[in-house]
Formats: sequence, C-alpha cells, structure tokens
Amino acid sequence: MLFTRRIYQTNISLDEAFKIWFEFINAFKPSGTEEILVADSLGRVTAEAVQAKISSPFFHASAMDGYAVHFIETFGASETNPVRLRLHEQAVPVNTGDPIPSGFNAVIMVEDVNLSGESIEIIEPATPYKHVRTVGEDIVQTELILPENHVIRPVDIGAMLSGGNVKIRVRRKPLVAVIPTGNEIVAPGAPLKTGNIIDSNSYMIGNLIIQWGGEFRKADVVQDDRELLKQKILDASDKSDVVVVLAGASAGTKDFTPNAVEDLGTVLVHGINIKPGKPVLLGSINSKPVIGLPGYPVAAHMTFEFFGKPLICRLLGIEPARTETMKARLSRHVASSIGHEEFLRVKVGKVGDNFI
Amino acid sequence: MLFTRRIYQTNISLDEAFKIWFEFINAFKPSGTEEILVADSLGRVTAEAVQAKISSPFFHASAMDGYAVHFIETFGASETNPVRLRLHEQAVPVNTGDPIPSGFNAVIMVEDVNLSGESIEIIEPATPYKHVRTVGEDIVQTELILPENHVIRPVDIGAMLSGGNVKIRVRRKPLVAVIPTGNEIVAPGAPLKTGNIIDSNSYMIGNLIIQWGGEFRKADVVQDDRELLKQKILDASDKSDVVVVLAGASAGTKDFTPNAVEDLGTVLVHGINIKPGKPVLLGSINSKPVIGLPGYPVAAHMTFEFFGKPLICRLLGIEPARTETMKARLSRHVASSIGHEEFLRVKVGKVGDNFI
Repeated sequence: MLFTRRIYQTNISLDEAFKIWFEFINAFKPSGTEEILVADSLGRVTAEAVQAKISSPFFHASAMDGYAVHFIETFGASETNPVRLRLHEQAVPVNTGDPIPSGFNAVIMVEDVNLSGESIEIIEPATPYKHVRTVGEDIVQTELILPENHVIRPVDIGAMLSGGNVKIRVRRKPLVAVIPTGNEIVAPGAPLKTGNIIDSNSYMIGNLIIQWGGEFRKADVVQDDRELLKQKILDASDKSDVVVVLAGASAGTKDFTPNAVEDLGTVLVHGINIKPGKPVLLGSINSKPVIGLPGYPVAAHMTFEFFGKPLICRLLGIEPARTETMKARLSRHVASSIGHEEFLRVKVGKVGDNFI
Repeated sequence: MLFTRRIYQTNISLDEAFKIWFEFINAFKPSGTEEILVADSLGRVTAEAVQAKISSPFFHASAMDGYAVHFIETFGASETNPVRLRLHEQAVPVNTGDPIPSGFNAVIMVEDVNLSGESIEIIEPATPYKHVRTVGEDIVQTELILPENHVIRPVDIGAMLSGGNVKIRVRRKPLVAVIPTGNEIVAPGAPLKTGNIIDSNSYMIGNLIIQWGGEFRKADVVQDDRELLKQKILDASDKSDVVVVLAGASAGTKDFTPNAVEDLGTVLVHGINIKPGKPVLLGSINSKPVIGLPGYPVAAHMTFEFFGKPLICRLLGIEPARTETMKARLSRHVASSIGHEEFLRVKVGKVGDNFI
C-alpha cells in the first residue's frame, strides 16, 4: 500500500501570509448592488451616497404644543405687565409638528400661557422663531444623509425616510459557498459511528459569514475523492463570490484541497507558522478567492477571522472593525514550540491595577 | 371653539422615571420559549442551559497527520540512534481526526518521520498520548456548553452541534406593536401636502426592536380619534408583548394617548424633565407595558433607548449592555433651561491629551 503524503508547500509567517492575501483581495471591487426598501435596510451597506430628496421639515413647523404668534406683538410682556393676544387672530393654537400659519413667526408653549376667555395672556416675550422648526432644520434638500459604504443603523433608516427616500441601492451580500469535506463528516443529528465527526464547522463558519454581512450556501459533504472535490470547488466558484473548503488542506493522505486548487487555479499560501491554524490554504480559482480551513474548530474559527473577515468586508466595501487589543500579564509560564507564532485563548481579570 | 388642553400630569426627573419603570418591568418574566435548529440560532437567547449530549471527540482521535504508535516502542530514539517501526504493525498511518487504532497511544507527525520501505524511522521518542485528542478533550458528555440567558454566537453554534445538540430551546422574540398616530402622518413614498409628516419613526423604532432581539409589527396609522386609538391600543395589547404608541403623548389638543391609556389601564409616568424627550408616557394595560414616545425623532430614539431597550432585554432574559461613558470637555458654553436634564449629541475628538 502506497501513501501519497504532502509536507506543507509553503510554511510562512502570519505577516507574510497577510501580505500575500491582502495584495490579492485588495484588487477586488465590492460585489454588485441591489435596490431595496429603506425600511428593510438594517445592517446593509450603502452602495452610493444617500441624499435628502426633500427638506425635513419641508414647512415651518411648531416645535411645541402652544400658540403661534407674531413675536413683535409679544414685546414687553412681563409678570407685572402681561400681554394679551386675541385667540385665532393674534395667537393660533398649534400642536407639535403643525405648520406655522403664514405670517406667524414664533410659538409660545401652552405651559407659559394663561387662557382667559377669547384671548391668551403671556408674561414673557417670544424671540423670533422661538419654538419654530424652520424648513430644513433637520435635513436640507440635497443634503448628504449617508455616505457610500456605510453600515445602516436604525437611526439612519429614520433619517433616510424623513429625507424622502423609499428605496436605496445597497451592496449585494457576498455569497460564500461552504464545502465540508471528508468521509468521516456526518450531518448534525445523524447516527454516529467511531471516527465520525459532526459537521459543526459548516454552521459555525456560515454564521460568521452572516454576522459579517454575507450570505452562505452550504454544500453537501464531499467525500474523499480528488476529482469529485475539484468538480465541486469549480462549481462553487462559478456560483458564488468566495469558496470555503472545510478541512482537507492539511498533510493527510486524503487532503486533496491543495491539489484540487492547484489543478483549477493558483495556490497562494499553503501552511502558516501559527498554532493553531497551521494547515490554512489560500488560493484563487477563476479570480475567485478560495480559502481552505483546518478541520480543528478553534483553528478554523481563528484563521477564518484572519482571512475571511477582511475579504467579506472588502466585498461589502467596508473596513473591518479593528480588533481591540490589550496588554496583560500571564498568570503562568507558557512555552510555545519554536518556529511558530502561537495564539492562546485567555481569560482576563483585573487584580489590583494589573490585568492578568 | 373650545380646546381641551392638558399640562403634563407628572413631570418628574429621569431617575424617578427609571425607578418607577424598573420596578414595573422587573416584575416581568422572560417571554415564552420555542424550539429551533441550532444552525439557525445566531443571536437568539438560550431559554435553558445547553449540555453536551456526547463527548467531543467521542473517541481517541489523532490531532495530526502522521503515524499512530505505541509510545513505549519509541523510547531511546535519537538522531544518532533512530528507531525503526514496521508500517501498519507498529506504526499505523492516521490523518488528523482519525480514530487512534485500539491499543495505540501516541501519534508521530508525518514531518518527523523518514519513510523507508515498509517501515518508518524516527529520531525522537513520543510521550504518552502525544498528538492524541483524548475522548472529551473539547467537551465532556453532560458538560455545560452554554448557560441559560446567553446570546448565541457563531462559535456557540459550533460547540452545541459538536456536543450533539441539533435543536435547542430559545426565548421567543418579544413582539412589539408599533402604532403611529396622527392625521398628519403619511407612509413613506405617499404624496406630501403641507403639514404632512413622513412616518419614519415607525421604522426607526421597529429596527431598534429588531436590533435588540425583538420582533415588531407596525400598525396602520391611527387618525386623531380617541375612541379609535383606544380600540387599536387594546387590540395591540392583546396580540403583543409590548405596545409602543408614536406621538400623541404630548400636551397638544389631539394628544389622546394619555387619556386612552388611562381609560384602559394605568399611566405610570407622563412627562419627564428631560430635553429632548419630555412628553414620554409609560403605562400598563392588562399587565402589558405601553410606551408613548415623542414624535420628534431624536427624542423618540433617545427615550426608547432609555425605556424600551431594558424592557426588551428583560423579556429576553438578558442584561442590557452597559452604555459606554466618557468624560470630555465641551468646546463651547452650553446653557440648559432650568429644571431640565438636557441630553446633547456631540462629536468627540482628541486634542493633545484631552477629549473635546
């Protein structure tokens, strides 16, 4: 029995891998656009600047419940010398948001008014446009509401609608094909035999894709068959923006992913000096990015954050949020194997003034 | 013409309002539960602790591509004195994740092996269970994977599936009815006349609800009619967990919300000494929370964060994330009106060592 074994082709540092990968993905333009309802746009990314189509308010509006007045007629009002204004003639009742009647130019709050018969009594003068929301106070027509490449929040939805926008153009969600591989992989819920591994990675990776603003389509598990894998990868690269192959990029006898990618396109990186996450594969097929992730869940999660997240952000036209970093002291000695950059998950606590 | 005007019933401080509101909502239990697929559970809240149904791995598995060996047979191996092991007998080829053949107890990495004919040559001894993922290394059967009241992340989905969970019980999303009110309110895209206001708040508030993990159902705009409003509020309180009434809680002549809530249940708070956001209404109808929000978008957004967010979190069984605070110097003098706590939106920049 003959074994075809592969030692990692490249075995480079994380920094070198980043350099190669970013050079490759920075050449990508954001994926296409689609028009959707503003009301349904939460979390989507603007594909063009959004401008106000109308001013808000588009008429002089009362900012308070009270009475619209001519400010000039309120001059001199004081506690000792109240001013009386005739209702409906000099003082028109308005509610918050009501248009200010033509010619009127200030509002007196209902709390500051004594109603007596057919007139109101005030004890303080109004200044010009007091409690009046003038045309365009919130948004002036043609004003920029949102720039391009902006992740839409609830408050943005309000502003866009108030500015007269009903539909907007957003980036299409990048579609990522996720291909689990290996004879040992079984679907969640299937009966288990020794050696089986539950396909949890597809859903972990798929939900990371969703969280980052993409869409994922899970392929059926591909058995250990080089030609079949090639066909599935080619097929997926046709129908999606990114292909992720789960496992099969290591140095095992059934790790066909590197050969498949080599046959179909270019292997950019295979093997990185990090722990966990060494057997990562980065490549390109028909100008589509292909990522081969390690089968070990922690390694898959970490390396997909390293390489998948900036790619999806790139296709959405946004910058990935900077990961927060902090310095802390280790509570015990940690030895790493020579020649590897090691990543550890830790718990951080504060003891006195120090983070441990 | 007679005007029925209302001055705010209560006009309390924000702290007092919080006290009343939290006393009220802390009595609520989380809303019901439902069973869903783990794969679809991103962002949902666990309604019970999730335990491992199986260990992961549930067999001794190879952590590397290489050869399973008896560690005792590798003793003494060195560069000057390599040890030879017969293939398939003393050294069984295994890929990462493969079960370790019965009786074997260590794995030697393929990189550390010289293949020569029908045996392998090693120059370093293996320690017991080296490169072997023993049963339960990641998760031991019955081990807690997620506690109750946990917001599910992609990595949790992976862990739950690996632990043999296919479906889990999560909190039902709290259903919030959002009722826009006022003759002047028109749907986005409808033709505009002077005095009209585009119903942007429904969607801003609705999308905040979605963002916080709830679900929202927008009612049709209710015209200024006290009886109609009462009927719509009652109807909504029947069919949902929370009722939000947009506008109509101020002191205007057509602000029927306070009366409607009073007729149907209890007004807890009406009017808070804050700017913006003064005309907030908090109440209870048939033990369902009712929130009346100001019509001014900034005020609606702010007060809904104050009172709506902790309520939705409560119904989900989670703690609201603490809002980050910071101290900074104002770049210009700001005068607030006496007797109000004023909230300003600001931009913060760093000038030298100071935040401005």
